[in-house]
Amino acid sequence: MERKILLTDCPDSTGLIAQITNICYKHQLNIINNREYVDHASGQFYMRTELEGIFNDHTLMLDLDRVLPNGSHRQLVGAERKRIVVLVTKEAHCLGDLLIKTFDGSLNVEIAAVVGNYPDLGELTEKFGIPYVTVSHENMSRDEHELAIAEVVDGFEPDYLVLAKFMRILTPTFVSRYASRIINIHHSFLPAFIGANPYRQAFERGVKIIGATAHFVTDDLDEGPIIHQQVIPVDHNFSAADMARAGRDVEKTVLSKALNLVLEDRVFVYGNRTVIL
Amino acid sequence: MERKILLTDCPDSTGLIAQITNICYKHQLNIINNREYVDHASGQFYMRTELEGIFNDHTLMLDLDRVLPNGSHRQLVGAERKRIVVLVTKEAHCLGDLLIKTFDGSLNVEIAAVVGNYPDLGELTEKFGIPYVTVSHENMSRDEHELAIAEVVDGFEPDYLVLAKFMRILTPTFVSRYASRIINIHHSFLPAFIGANPYRQAFERGVKIIGATAHFVTDDLDEGPIIHQQVIPVDHNFSAADMARAGRDVEKTVLSKALNLVLEDRVFVYGNRTVIL
Amino acid sequence: MERKILLTDCPDSTGLIAQITNICYKHQLNIINNREYVDHASGQFYMRTELEGIFNDHTLMLDLDRVLPNGSHRQLVGAERKRIVVLVTKEAHCLGDLLIKTFDGSLNVEIAAVVGNYPDLGELTEKFGIPYVTVSHENMSRDEHELAIAEVVDGFEPDYLVLAKFMRILTPTFVSRYASRIINIHHSFLPAFIGANPYRQAFERGVKIIGATAHFVTDDLDEGPIIHQQVIPVDHNFSAADMARAGRDVEKTVLSKALNLVLEDRVFVYGNRTVIL
Amino acid sequence: MERKILLTDCPDSTGLIAQITNICYKHQLNIINNREYVDHASGQFYMRTELEGIFNDHTLMLDLDRVLPNGSHRQLVGAERKRIVVLVTKEAHCLGDLLIKTFDGSLNVEIAAVVGNYPDLGELTEKFGIPYVTVSHENMSRDEHELAIAEVVDGFEPDYLVLAKFMRILTPTFVSRYASRIINIHHSFLPAFIGANPYRQAFERGVKIIGATAHFVTDDLDEGPIIHQQVIPVDHNFSAADMARAGRDVEKTVLSKALNLVLEDRVFVYGNRTVIL
Repeated sequence: MERKILLTDCPDSTGLIAQITNICYKHQLNIINNREYVDHASGQFYMRTELEGIFNDHTLMLDLDRVLPNGSHRQLVGAERKRIVVLVTKEAHCLGDLLIKTFDGSLNVEIAAVVGNYPDLGELTEKFGIPYVTVSHENMSRDEHELAIAEVVDGFEPDYLVLAKFMRILTPTFVSRYASRIINIHHSFLPAFIGANPYRQAFERGVKIIGATAHFVTDDLDEGPIIHQQVIPVDHNFSAADMARAGRDVEKTVLSKALNLVLEDRVFVYGNRTVIL
Repeated sequence: MERKILLTDCPDSTGLIAQITNICYKHQLNIINNREYVDHASGQFYMRTELEGIFNDHTLMLDLDRVLPNGSHRQLVGAERKRIVVLVTKEAHCLGDLLIKTFDGSLNVEIAAVVGNYPDLGELTEKFGIPYVTVSHENMSRDEHELAIAEVVDGFEPDYLVLAKFMRILTPTFVSRYASRIINIHHSFLPAFIGANPYRQAFERGVKIIGATAHFVTDDLDEGPIIHQQVIPVDHNFSAADMARAGRDVEKTVLSKALNLVLEDRVFVYGNRTVIL
Repeated sequence: MERKILLTDCPDSTGLIAQITNICYKHQLNIINNREYVDHASGQFYMRTELEGIFNDHTLMLDLDRVLPNGSHRQLVGAERKRIVVLVTKEAHCLGDLLIKTFDGSLNVEIAAVVGNYPDLGELTEKFGIPYVTVSHENMSRDEHELAIAEVVDGFEPDYLVLAKFMRILTPTFVSRYASRIINIHHSFLPAFIGANPYRQAFERGVKIIGATAHFVTDDLDEGPIIHQQVIPVDHNFSAADMARAGRDVEKTVLSKALNLVLEDRVFVYGNRTVIL
Repeated sequence: MERKILLTDCPDSTGLIAQITNICYKHQLNIINNREYVDHASGQFYMRTELEGIFNDHTLMLDLDRVLPNGSHRQLVGAERKRIVVLVTKEAHCLGDLLIKTFDGSLNVEIAAVVGNYPDLGELTEKFGIPYVTVSHENMSRDEHELAIAEVVDGFEPDYLVLAKFMRILTPTFVSRYASRIINIHHSFLPAFIGANPYRQAFERGVKIIGATAHFVTDDLDEGPIIHQQVIPVDHNFSAADMARAGRDVEKTVLSKALNLVLEDRVFVYGNRTVIL
């Protein structure tokens, strides 16, 4: 008995759930959990099906292909632990949370390596027996630096890249190399305060709530599909520095939560939105 | 083209989703929205299916009965507006919210009548052209009073009874007369502070969060299946009276939200829990 | 024995709290509650002092003026109920909440009148015995329309104007006529989605949280000092219309809460921020 | 120029703020931040005053004693970093968060040692160069075990003991040895589900919100004065295990936040409540 997850993403049509679950039924696979969503505006169908049984992947896929419309994507995902590379700069809170959660098993992931453009977080990373590679951007063009990072990253063959307060803007070239595989945490409540020093902007506007947004990275750096968001209340007693400090707990919680959703194959992207199933 | 909701509640077995949606497919009914849940501990299956098409209710039910296990419940609910009777005492906030939301159409319900054990809320109710009946408990035993209320209530033939800060304890006799049809809002975060004057208890305990719970009423008055809960932060500046005042906004929001879930046929009860689909 | 509130807003200097509370002490006024805040960036001092005793307003002010720095504002506010005029268009939820809360006494205010640019909300308003005046913008320039509204408003001599989903953009002329006296509720989480149809924008961005912001109106319409904000979670199941519906409960709660803070003289404005004491 | 915090806790009387701040004024101490609270029910006055200047502690205290009523407590606290000993059992999340936050400086504390009744968390602790002492409870009576822990703890001379998921019930003897100096995090939303396996209880009750409570430990183990609380929403898809997992992020955030409030001398205890200034 194995457990696998069937992910279906296709144009909607009548009877899709019946047809797909019918095939699972014929394969004597038990549906542990099934969630689907239809976006009526775009006419797109999304389904995540947790299955248990003895799998014949090849014939299952063939059977599905017979009933699914043209332009369908379907994928059968096993239970293997996924690998990530974490990109950092100097701030420890997001990385620290990922390290602790991986260490105590509450995040089911292998951190293959941590890559930083400064050496600051090497000491913390190596406490956990994880390789830390410093790729300084000094005396390098942006393109050269990204290429150097990409070479290091690719050596570790990660499923996903996690930007844990990596404070460099990525070029479309780098982003497209890892399309839909880069997860970022954005300080402050996106897209309210884009640009430098968002907590300063939030402070000057006198906001009463701050937050963080985890999203996939697209060309438009802080505008990719949102995976998870969370907020906390602040008040006039908070300086910009206080807001940044208070924001850190939210940032790390949101990033970990978003990563967990991705690791459990719950996140579908369509256009600039996500469906979480 | 009509819209109806199919509610299925039955012992789990392999292929249920396939079988049910297959039948819908054969009836040429389009599935607008489908959500299901399996409680693995009890082995019970719950599904809410929004369908669109031309319905032949009788043959649809016959087809379903052929595939559903013994002990199944299935029900096809049309789009008719449901009727409620609201029971009140003296506090206006929950009733007021129901009146405004019904008036402006954001709650799809007909308030058939409001019944109070005091006349206080008659003026407010009648502003909205809704009958208000005072059934005083004075000079009556509890049983006599409940019987008098039941007679008034039954005259209005409601689908549900909504206790909008009705401050009387109901007997098992009354509750069983409207089994799974009475919705209550409980002041304070249930089941933390049961008994009289919960905000006073919360205040003396120095809690930092208060809230409200909407639930179905069972014999155990404030212990029925929870439909919805919400909380707000408080601090040491709040007196017990301040907490009660702050709690009112939560109470009314939670009650309206819970009622809306019930009106949209999203709430399944099993044991002392609810599944919201 | 009376209760009054002393509001002080002045350049910070050493010993201010001591000097002010000392004067209260000499006047045999008991301090029921005192909150102060110093903005160190701008060097401004804010204090709200609830006092109880027998007041000689004139000598108290003279004594204060002797110790306060140049450029100080101080004000002694009595317990009189404040008056508001509510401006509306067609949506009932914010107005409805103000009406119910005024009716049941949970908002200590007199709604002198409701003014709408459509007649739609007249029926609801008049249920509560409050005058409703329709000032249509048809066949009028923006300036003429605003002048017509201002004449109606001024006839009711309100302390504050409350924009309860009033869907007209106000000119600087109108705004400056009621400087720091207009309270608005902004749909969606400001300043994330400025412009038309914010819930549509939020939906297309796939946000996971929506909210509302109550603020004073300045020339920059939706950019005035924020008084209160609140958010709720949403997900991919929410259409733009669902988000708008879910947003209504937040909007009305935030507006009522902000108004209450203003009515209790807890809100100081400085620059584009507020201090809530 | 130094910064110190003056903490005053005394019976309320007219003019207290004036008298205290007056003395600070005479000592040419600048008030950076001042917050006070009067509990009118018990007639008790609490004030936290952040001061800057050149301190003559002795004469300042003498001057204060002259104006404060009998039964007053006042204390001048310097900026020295406080020391804690953390008590743990097997769960890493709360300890992990304290380690990371101490490591990156976001928590201003020295973790003198971690003491566990199992060796499990030694590896994690020692990564951060902090001593870990295992004091097994095997083959020991409860009193013997507590005495052994107390001896280890006392050797490190901590200001506070932090129970970071320490799963042993403490006797009144142990608690009174560290009166008002033990901070605990309680799994689940206290006092809703006291006793063993609270997430199981919460699950069976079908709650829609879970949370955590940080509090001082008194004889009545989970009933001490609450310092901080936070909640998150859950739904019927959460098993008891899922609730426990989701609860971990809340637990660690609440414990860190509560500890930070204590470290900044913001928490006054009176009766079974706290005032946070």
